[in-house]
Amino acid sequence: MRLALLTDFGTVDPYVAVMKGVLASRTDAAIHDLTHDIPPFDVFGAAWFLATVAPWWPGTIFVCVVDPGVGTSRKIVAMERIRETQLFLAPDNGLLTMIDGDCRAVSVENEALFLPHGSSTFHGRDRFAPVAAALANGVPLDELGPPLTDIVRLDYEPPSYGEDSARGTIVRIDRFGNCITDMEAARVAFPRFALHAGQHVITRSSRTYGEAGDGPFVITGSTGHLEISVANASAAALLQLQRGDRVTVEVVSG
Amino acid sequence: MRLALLTDFGTVDPYVAVMKGVLASRTDAAIHDLTHDIPPFDVFGAAWFLATVAPWWPGTIFVCVVDPGVGTSRKIVAMERIRETQLFLAPDNGLLTMIDGDCRAVSVENEALFLPHGSSTFHGRDRFAPVAAALANGVPLDELGPPLTDIVRLDYEPPSYGEDSARGTIVRIDRFGNCITDMEAARVAFPRFALHAGQHVITRSSRTYGEAGDGPFVITGSTGHLEISVANASAAALLQLQRGDRVTVEVVSG
Amino acid sequence: MRLALLTDFGTVDPYVAVMKGVLASRTDAAIHDLTHDIPPFDVFGAAWFLATVAPWWPGTIFVCVVDPGVGTSRKIVAMERIRETQLFLAPDNGLLTMIDGDCRAVSVENEALFLPHGSSTFHGRDRFAPVAAALANGVPLDELGPPLTDIVRLDYEPPSYGEDSARGTIVRIDRFGNCITDMEAARVAFPRFALHAGQHVITRSSRTYGEAGDGPFVITGSTGHLEISVANASAAALLQLQRGDRVTVEVVSG
Repeated sequence: MRLALLTDFGTVDPYVAVMKGVLASRTDAAIHDLTHDIPPFDVFGAAWFLATVAPWWPGTIFVCVVDPGVGTSRKIVAMERIRETQLFLAPDNGLLTMIDGDCRAVSVENEALFLPHGSSTFHGRDRFAPVAAALANGVPLDELGPPLTDIVRLDYEPPSYGEDSARGTIVRIDRFGNCITDMEAARVAFPRFALHAGQHVITRSSRTYGEAGDGPFVITGSTGHLEISVANASAAALLQLQRGDRVTVEVVSG
Repeated sequence: MRLALLTDFGTVDPYVAVMKGVLASRTDAAIHDLTHDIPPFDVFGAAWFLATVAPWWPGTIFVCVVDPGVGTSRKIVAMERIRETQLFLAPDNGLLTMIDGDCRAVSVENEALFLPHGSSTFHGRDRFAPVAAALANGVPLDELGPPLTDIVRLDYEPPSYGEDSARGTIVRIDRFGNCITDMEAARVAFPRFALHAGQHVITRSSRTYGEAGDGPFVITGSTGHLEISVANASAAALLQLQRGDRVTVEVVSG
Repeated sequence: MRLALLTDFGTVDPYVAVMKGVLASRTDAAIHDLTHDIPPFDVFGAAWFLATVAPWWPGTIFVCVVDPGVGTSRKIVAMERIRETQLFLAPDNGLLTMIDGDCRAVSVENEALFLPHGSSTFHGRDRFAPVAAALANGVPLDELGPPLTDIVRLDYEPPSYGEDSARGTIVRIDRFGNCITDMEAARVAFPRFALHAGQHVITRSSRTYGEAGDGPFVITGSTGHLEISVANASAAALLQLQRGDRVTVEVVSG
């Protein structure tokens, strides 16, 4: 299985380079970077990033280190998603909240797999990397530790859908300033609508960014969710929207 | 053939990680990052970056996604550069303007190679990545679509060279603030010269950054083109120069 | 042997992509990025980054290009660290100051290994990359050039340790604002202490970031050195500390 890394370490500091050294010197598995640019300590952002990316990486071991509680009593979880033959290694802090399907998890406690003389501040190097290398080399999940039935879940209200309205949340502002919601476009396919976000009401939609013309519009993004956009500009900046803002969509009668 | 990626997606958002998942799960070819830090929508910058990098990557499939027109009627071009055994996959928006030599191109239209149920907003995932993986796995160019004889070219005035003067353009400000022009140093080898850029006239040159001393100077950069530099500082900031500024070099008689 | 790259080139400019093309087209060795985000020209920062990372990469060729003197008479050094079977390729400007142990070095002068028609401004492409590829392909160190007995060392005062006090230096501000010193925690294990840094005196310590509570505290970082931290905030910003600031730790009697 290949390895895929997701951290908030950035690449200015040596943390990622150290982790990769531990991995590369212990396994021949391919090492891929998903991102190291999760905002520091942003577990929600990491959870959303991971959930967006994971469907495209079958047969992969995900090594996820966004870990404000490193060194405290928080556990490390290793979770298998069975149908996709995926393994997720993460602090048990909610990072796996949005990974669904048929899963089973263990608490990573087998110290024989950790680096000796490890620190209490850099589990990425001392625990995550050697355990991930062991998994890549075929160590079975059950050797990592005892079953963990109740992993930590973030307080996150999933979207709700009614007959003539729906409610959701802006879960991400992307690099272009698009405001990505968690509302599935297929379930909000109203012929005419009014989307309420912050102080704004948006009634235009577009199938593409290029054809949208001026002003804000609603578009179905690459993941099939509603996005609020402005062509060649930042919708978030222009409309003063941010992650966590609630969004309502209502039918407008013709 | 190896794969090399060039995008304006950055690594904060999940787009690159998704594209790589599609690639890595479909081909064993090596995947290299050229950059994901092209400024958003900057097709000219991408064209220049690609032209600078391509000579050093023989036998490579370039996957280039800087695509403000995604989802509109713009085509996707796959171009073979025959002598270098290179393949270029890009939106037909001018991104390949500066790739010269003996080339032939097709319009990528074979939907059997795309992901099913694709979006109109993320062709990087739905079209570029699976088509690139197919090329890496040996699918011939002609299976992608019909020949494309007239690919889009950017409006860009190449440099002109006279006996005692030459004109060109600042095509890039690099990370150090060096102002890189498109003028070949070998064709402007005047014994004494005056370079006019913005409000400034520069008459000093240096063979190296380290030996230059104080103040602005002209140097032959790593690609053989004239650059305007200031040792250990940003020439662009100090001289208020930017990309697109025209530059003139004149002989000064002794 | 695998290749690991460390530069101050960033990924906005094409320099790293060009270097990797030279490497990938000349050797099948794996190519890893350590970082390309060393601040421009920051040889000290590069030296510290390399010393922190190197222990975790046995059997590796390090290609280090932070090179304000490129094109001047500064040498290029290739150094073997014998017990770790590591090779370091770097400008002879102090970048290898903190690599210790049983080493031998040569001055890289064998022009047959360089790219033909090389520039005086981009040795990363014209010298470092082809020489690194040659080393990865088995060319012995002695073919690179004559022995170099006196490599350049940075002016850097190592920490000093006394019975009831110790002195050191802040060598790095990390992405989270932690102020990392060069003082080994195991040698400053005073039961009660007062750490003086800038205008501040810190007397609290914590075993983890998560358990620290409010206000500044001292922690043993991932590399075993003392760090000055503030939980979920930037110690450097709050305490106005910067790299190079001297730090003193004194015993406080109970």
